[in-house]
Amino acid sequence: MNSGDFQPVSGFDLPRFAGIATFMRLPHITFDDDRISEVEIGLIGVPWDGGTTNRPGPRHAPRQLRDYSTMIRSQNGVTRTKPFELARCADLGDVGPNPADVQDSMARITAFYSKVVNAGIRPLSAGGDHLCTLPILRALAKDRPLGMVHFDSHTDLFHSYFGGFKYTHGTPFRRAVEEGLLDPKRVCMIGIRGPAYDFEDRDFADAVGIRVIPIEEFHARGVADVMAEARAIAGSGETYVSYDIDFIDPAFAPGTGTPEIGGPNSFQALEVVRGLRGLNIIGADLVEVSPPFDTSGATAFLGVTIMFELLCVLAECKARQAGR
Amino acid sequence: MNSGDFQPVSGFDLPRFAGIATFMRLPHITFDDDRISEVEIGLIGVPWDGGTTNRPGPRHAPRQLRDYSTMIRSQNGVTRTKPFELARCADLGDVGPNPADVQDSMARITAFYSKVVNAGIRPLSAGGDHLCTLPILRALAKDRPLGMVHFDSHTDLFHSYFGGFKYTHGTPFRRAVEEGLLDPKRVCMIGIRGPAYDFEDRDFADAVGIRVIPIEEFHARGVADVMAEARAIAGSGETYVSYDIDFIDPAFAPGTGTPEIGGPNSFQALEVVRGLRGLNIIGADLVEVSPPFDTSGATAFLGVTIMFELLCVLAECKARQAGR
Amino acid sequence: MNSGDFQPVSGFDLPRFAGIATFMRLPHITFDDDRISEVEIGLIGVPWDGGTTNRPGPRHAPRQLRDYSTMIRSQNGVTRTKPFELARCADLGDVGPNPADVQDSMARITAFYSKVVNAGIRPLSAGGDHLCTLPILRALAKDRPLGMVHFDSHTDLFHSYFGGFKYTHGTPFRRAVEEGLLDPKRVCMIGIRGPAYDFEDRDFADAVGIRVIPIEEFHARGVADVMAEARAIAGSGETYVSYDIDFIDPAFAPGTGTPEIGGPNSFQALEVVRGLRGLNIIGADLVEVSPPFDTSGATAFLGVTIMFELLCVLAECKARQAGR
Amino acid sequence: MNSGDFQPVSGFDLPRFAGIATFMRLPHITFDDDRISEVEIGLIGVPWDGGTTNRPGPRHAPRQLRDYSTMIRSQNGVTRTKPFELARCADLGDVGPNPADVQDSMARITAFYSKVVNAGIRPLSAGGDHLCTLPILRALAKDRPLGMVHFDSHTDLFHSYFGGFKYTHGTPFRRAVEEGLLDPKRVCMIGIRGPAYDFEDRDFADAVGIRVIPIEEFHARGVADVMAEARAIAGSGETYVSYDIDFIDPAFAPGTGTPEIGGPNSFQALEVVRGLRGLNIIGADLVEVSPPFDTSGATAFLGVTIMFELLCVLAECKARQAGR
Amino acid sequence: MNSGDFQPVSGFDLPRFAGIATFMRLPHITFDDDRISEVEIGLIGVPWDGGTTNRPGPRHAPRQLRDYSTMIRSQNGVTRTKPFELARCADLGDVGPNPADVQDSMARITAFYSKVVNAGIRPLSAGGDHLCTLPILRALAKDRPLGMVHFDSHTDLFHSYFGGFKYTHGTPFRRAVEEGLLDPKRVCMIGIRGPAYDFEDRDFADAVGIRVIPIEEFHARGVADVMAEARAIAGSGETYVSYDIDFIDPAFAPGTGTPEIGGPNSFQALEVVRGLRGLNIIGADLVEVSPPFDTSGATAFLGVTIMFELLCVLAECKARQAGR
Amino acid sequence: MNSGDFQPVSGFDLPRFAGIATFMRLPHITFDDDRISEVEIGLIGVPWDGGTTNRPGPRHAPRQLRDYSTMIRSQNGVTRTKPFELARCADLGDVGPNPADVQDSMARITAFYSKVVNAGIRPLSAGGDHLCTLPILRALAKDRPLGMVHFDSHTDLFHSYFGGFKYTHGTPFRRAVEEGLLDPKRVCMIGIRGPAYDFEDRDFADAVGIRVIPIEEFHARGVADVMAEARAIAGSGETYVSYDIDFIDPAFAPGTGTPEIGGPNSFQALEVVRGLRGLNIIGADLVEVSPPFDTSGATAFLGVTIMFELLCVLAECKARQAGR
Repeated sequence: MNSGDFQPVSGFDLPRFAGIATFMRLPHITFDDDRISEVEIGLIGVPWDGGTTNRPGPRHAPRQLRDYSTMIRSQNGVTRTKPFELARCADLGDVGPNPADVQDSMARITAFYSKVVNAGIRPLSAGGDHLCTLPILRALAKDRPLGMVHFDSHTDLFHSYFGGFKYTHGTPFRRAVEEGLLDPKRVCMIGIRGPAYDFEDRDFADAVGIRVIPIEEFHARGVADVMAEARAIAGSGETYVSYDIDFIDPAFAPGTGTPEIGGPNSFQALEVVRGLRGLNIIGADLVEVSPPFDTSGATAFLGVTIMFELLCVLAECKARQAGR
Repeated sequence: MNSGDFQPVSGFDLPRFAGIATFMRLPHITFDDDRISEVEIGLIGVPWDGGTTNRPGPRHAPRQLRDYSTMIRSQNGVTRTKPFELARCADLGDVGPNPADVQDSMARITAFYSKVVNAGIRPLSAGGDHLCTLPILRALAKDRPLGMVHFDSHTDLFHSYFGGFKYTHGTPFRRAVEEGLLDPKRVCMIGIRGPAYDFEDRDFADAVGIRVIPIEEFHARGVADVMAEARAIAGSGETYVSYDIDFIDPAFAPGTGTPEIGGPNSFQALEVVRGLRGLNIIGADLVEVSPPFDTSGATAFLGVTIMFELLCVLAECKARQAGR
Repeated sequence: MNSGDFQPVSGFDLPRFAGIATFMRLPHITFDDDRISEVEIGLIGVPWDGGTTNRPGPRHAPRQLRDYSTMIRSQNGVTRTKPFELARCADLGDVGPNPADVQDSMARITAFYSKVVNAGIRPLSAGGDHLCTLPILRALAKDRPLGMVHFDSHTDLFHSYFGGFKYTHGTPFRRAVEEGLLDPKRVCMIGIRGPAYDFEDRDFADAVGIRVIPIEEFHARGVADVMAEARAIAGSGETYVSYDIDFIDPAFAPGTGTPEIGGPNSFQALEVVRGLRGLNIIGADLVEVSPPFDTSGATAFLGVTIMFELLCVLAECKARQAGR
Repeated sequence: MNSGDFQPVSGFDLPRFAGIATFMRLPHITFDDDRISEVEIGLIGVPWDGGTTNRPGPRHAPRQLRDYSTMIRSQNGVTRTKPFELARCADLGDVGPNPADVQDSMARITAFYSKVVNAGIRPLSAGGDHLCTLPILRALAKDRPLGMVHFDSHTDLFHSYFGGFKYTHGTPFRRAVEEGLLDPKRVCMIGIRGPAYDFEDRDFADAVGIRVIPIEEFHARGVADVMAEARAIAGSGETYVSYDIDFIDPAFAPGTGTPEIGGPNSFQALEVVRGLRGLNIIGADLVEVSPPFDTSGATAFLGVTIMFELLCVLAECKARQAGR
Repeated sequence: MNSGDFQPVSGFDLPRFAGIATFMRLPHITFDDDRISEVEIGLIGVPWDGGTTNRPGPRHAPRQLRDYSTMIRSQNGVTRTKPFELARCADLGDVGPNPADVQDSMARITAFYSKVVNAGIRPLSAGGDHLCTLPILRALAKDRPLGMVHFDSHTDLFHSYFGGFKYTHGTPFRRAVEEGLLDPKRVCMIGIRGPAYDFEDRDFADAVGIRVIPIEEFHARGVADVMAEARAIAGSGETYVSYDIDFIDPAFAPGTGTPEIGGPNSFQALEVVRGLRGLNIIGADLVEVSPPFDTSGATAFLGVTIMFELLCVLAECKARQAGR
Repeated sequence: MNSGDFQPVSGFDLPRFAGIATFMRLPHITFDDDRISEVEIGLIGVPWDGGTTNRPGPRHAPRQLRDYSTMIRSQNGVTRTKPFELARCADLGDVGPNPADVQDSMARITAFYSKVVNAGIRPLSAGGDHLCTLPILRALAKDRPLGMVHFDSHTDLFHSYFGGFKYTHGTPFRRAVEEGLLDPKRVCMIGIRGPAYDFEDRDFADAVGIRVIPIEEFHARGVADVMAEARAIAGSGETYVSYDIDFIDPAFAPGTGTPEIGGPNSFQALEVVRGLRGLNIIGADLVEVSPPFDTSGATAFLGVTIMFELLCVLAECKARQAGR
């Protein structure tokens, strides 16, 4: 069903280190380009870390992720999914933020994703810090709440910081619930851990019905069992997937701003995404990769491998719904 | 029970990257300060690596650990222990060593810890190399032997190095047993591994009754089973905990002088400390973090997270014994 | 004239790697402390990079600069100035910013420095990005414009960014002139270089009378000649010194967000500060050190050495005016 | 049976950081040296990465591995094997490649290993990229095919690259089967994973009877079960062991050119080698360590620890066959 | 004269860290694109290091140089040249090499540049190692020899390596002279230094009339005098400029494979290019940047700044010849 | 006069990254080797940093310097000296220190160098920290005081540290003068700089007649003038050369424990050694390279280039005195 136009460049033809870096070596197609109407899944960078309360850097992630994504090939080694044959994929470029103004940047992001939604494209985004997800959801969920599977070491459900400031990377899902963008009963947060100031976030989750699976439960039950529950919570409705790289243990993903000790290993980091197969996924993101703290590039490479796994489940969903 | 004076600064008020770095953002209280009499648990740096036989650097650890400890918050995410509410904690600063003289440095350390002991303060120390533990024990155990739970990849029970030299970071517990500072029947060493020159250390352990649990046994039995045995060995008597960061696999803790391949992962690294709950712990240390080899800071961050877990069990013990 | 209380710790007594890190190993004195009334020069951190348009990180600079400042001793090797004998110096700690809100952070900074001014303390600040200087000047120059000697590779005189946004690290001195905080006729900018979008900033400088000495002129004339002109421009009036670390060539100062090729070397970097001797200096800052990009710490060490040179001219000025 | 001549230097005598670096601190013995006739196992470097299609660097591995091998001691901590007492081992130095000519380099390597074979020495090689193994096998297997246990994330069974080029690090075992150097029925490949362009390599494996155990099967079955099958496949015939460092997860072994996410941890990395005990091993290699990407040296240290485990099984086999 | 299509993106509009990385944020135009016929200067990557005899890595340079080139703005700060207004510039992408075959790669490069020449485009190339320049010259100089100004620490005039191998990065200009691609009387080599095996290269230079200016002469005479001589040597004929990043001292450009101590500083590195103004330049390259050894990115940033200076003299020449 | 035995391996024959690393690829000859009697200049490592008061690491320098010394070739590019043809040179290996005992280590070093002296070999040493030079001088100057040219940013003339401790890397030349190993009237110290605690060291120098040339004088007068004075001070008597890598600015030599800002550049770093030509040099050392802080290896490479320049003047002196 897919024309050759939307295929990635092969490393058997052009060495991986050669060529201008786009996500997964896909064509770069902007909204000025006629081919935009054919795109089904758009890979988008959100180079913005204006909500970061600790170590900065995710503004540099989209470019680094594009660079490392040339290591990605075209088929899933485990599921044998061929995402680029299942759906027409393209790199839509980056949203241009205003690094010195939070509200302006959020407005720019929502405006960009509204165009994506209007074009019928499902977004696979590379943040940016986790506050990026809020303006993305404002575009994707503007007319009905979504379910969400959320991989993270933090709930990002806090009320406010620094004397009442409501927009940081620790608050997006509190805002998203308040704004009706998420259906809390269909939200599952996996991997939560680390020392805490208080449990105000967890109390909020309990109050609105968000299911939080802390890391000790994750390790005790294993991936298969946890993901079965996550699928049951998300159900058959439209679901967003938000994957914070700090879900994974910092030995595997050191390049992030607020790491927490004791997370899943890299094999589990991929397995959990494969555990999403069958869900009705309309968008996904991978956030909080911070290249300045990613000494060896290991985090970026893990990040793009997760993006590829997310792309596989997005493409399978698209193809299934398109009757392919 | 605890006045506000001994509380850490919150990252919701002052960003984590701001402020002069003390251990866990606690107040810095010296022996000149009136408040010293109120302190129950003292966090102390021992910036000394004079006993190091291979790659140096732990002299720089206390400062780096203070820096990364601003990532620590106030409650344990798993046990929900609130150490700063259970006991009055403070940063007591660093012992000043003589980097060019081993005996002088050991005398300085013992003198400092004698003041700590006399003030009724339980020490949580950040080394320094493992030889630090010997002069600490000389102060803490001067009138009776202690039990010890020891996490490490090495026994540190060797007789001597370089033609008979008896004081290196490979010998502290041989000396401690000889000097009557440890009761070998109440000592358990966990995680021992790596290629060996000979097994002279292990033979000594067997001869005096120290229980050594090598890594292959640790992996086969699991944390819960191993820690049950460790608790049984330490018993109800006064117990010291010595945690060498090289207990953990070098992928998680690269910044150390003598790493050994194949150790526990970071979740297990925290679990073993939680497995100490209920013991009568009168002091603890975290040693052998070497910042010059800690390219990304990952080891320091893991180290302070372990220190926080150690603080939780120390504070629980103190509160329990104080009838709180 | 100076009591021992305000002396730095000597590395002959306590090794440089030991002890809690304060600026130049000075006592940490807050506004709650009685001794604050005796302080004449306050070293202050401004851990904030909310105005950064490119690579972030200066929020981490004050802590890293404190760490490296333990390499500083007590006397100037060239001028033989003893700043700690000339004036009572202390580390006043950090201003607490709001990392996600530019206006709130600027208000906090101005409020802090108003207290500093009211206490009669001359500030030596460690940024932070260059936007920090604007709220500092709002406190220092609130009742009359100051002269300024400005070392930088950029003029920071731009009008706005990203569609009209007026507060970034590229605009502080445009704002300061507009707000009457600087007397442009008494302002000299030294070291300006790099490719440009346009010369709107330079045209503004010409229009208001700011003297810009570009790098090719600096290299052609040499330090002595350039600094003689700078002193003549600043004159005998109250003068502020703002030192952006990117004034220096990136081989000497790689850890900064917007480096420009071809700057002065490290010896010249110190010489220019010694060229300020005799001016009426009421405050100074060193900004734009970015630890995440300072792979080896070289920039931090150069930065604190510049701070020490700045302290020497500040202390000489204070002592001279106090008739010491 | 072994004279003292072939013993490594002990770290109890000469600190590990001292002395000219040879593999495991063994004597360096060249073919010009009379003692060459006594050598039974030769450690050899192949500093060549002419077959690398992506990130280069293994040309630097032998020297870095020698450096880190001073961390190795003389006995296996788990099996208690003493390889240097079981067989006479020496460092034979490096093969000198031609970095700009693939065919010339392969000819030089085969020539060197033919001398090794003729001297009755079993080689333990440190690559170099994986193409090194082909010219090594041409010497070792010139008169009969060998079995092979192959640890890797890639099969290295591809036909060709870049329009028909047949000699890269992705093709050595395709060539080795075609050239009759390997008996495919006695070859087992373990740990295969990662996204794929196609499964042409896997189809070839199936066609010729090579057993491929992908990573998800490895994780599901565990080391003991997988290695039992590997031993059964290799059988009692002469067997070569080829260990690509990218078999291991990149968190443990970041310094390699084509990492793949989700591999074994470091304990499993050693366990699999111990699972080779009892096989008839006539040579082994450790390849694809790339120092320029090994930011912290962790990969080199893991690499030499694997080499030590390989040496233990090589020496046990030699001793067993010599009736010791 | 120039349409807006060929203008770089401004950092005032889109932050520098945002967007897909092309050289200097120019449009990416391939030979399939209609606009190719309008391009006057093409920026081209040659990601190939097959001629490297020591430390590898330049294959990764084009991508890293594109990333850092987003730091470049649109006007020269010293000469005030506006290259993008003087000539239509575009990023033509990378030549696709065969990393495992030297001759095949050279043929591919010559074929690509023949298209460039045929399209009337002047190339500004980013290597790759210095062997790249030979196949480029084979396209550019196929019908008459060129003059050349060559900045380097090595002459690259050696006859052969490793027993007669004639194609490495130490031999391109020996071959170019032999093949009649360069007119040795119009060739000037500047900055030559370092310990030598012998002076066979220098003897060849003398024999054919190439002028070699060693580093001690460069430092003694200064940039202006040396460049006046270089201009006189190149004369008014067509001239190529080849700039090896190792011309510059390794403190300024550490990321290269064969650094030599004692070179020019970064200001001189730019000045020498400005010293080429007025020459008849038909092409230029910047080679030998090796990202794996460029720990902090400093070399890449210096490299792209040199490329911008080269672009300025190329564009001035083009505009002058076009009568603009 | 020199047999081929003492020639370094050429990079035209064996690539520089290949082979076991010895100093400058010379043969490794120990005192057990018959050829020792032929050696005229011995390159020796002293892997010891027991006198270090601040950042450690020089214990790792000899091995890293050997590694980088494979970049050295056989002739001086400026003076055209061929040291390996002028004198028989060999790598004598490392002195084995006791890393935990200062006095024991000094005794071992003196014992080793006594053998060197007795064998008639002139030593070129690679430290180690600067305290190494004291025990070396005890062997070389045991029967008469030597002159010395000393390149450094510190005088190393302090009396004691940490309450009277007399043996650190800040005291060796105070001790050497006291012990009669140096003739202070024939000692010249060049490059001294940095902030100071006091000038007790400088007062001592003045009192005994040591000439100290501070950095500002060095920069003002230039290399030629300074070195003419240094030669005059050393005169025609036997002279030792001690070169601390921190003489050079830290941008060029970051990998050292106590850097000081504002030193010479790398070209001057070599020029000063060439300024020693003609002196009667009987030994030399290069100390204080600290690999753990040498992020990119730049310091090691600069260090070995200085060693090569030192070797050239040593070999010229030897040849001259031997009447060659």
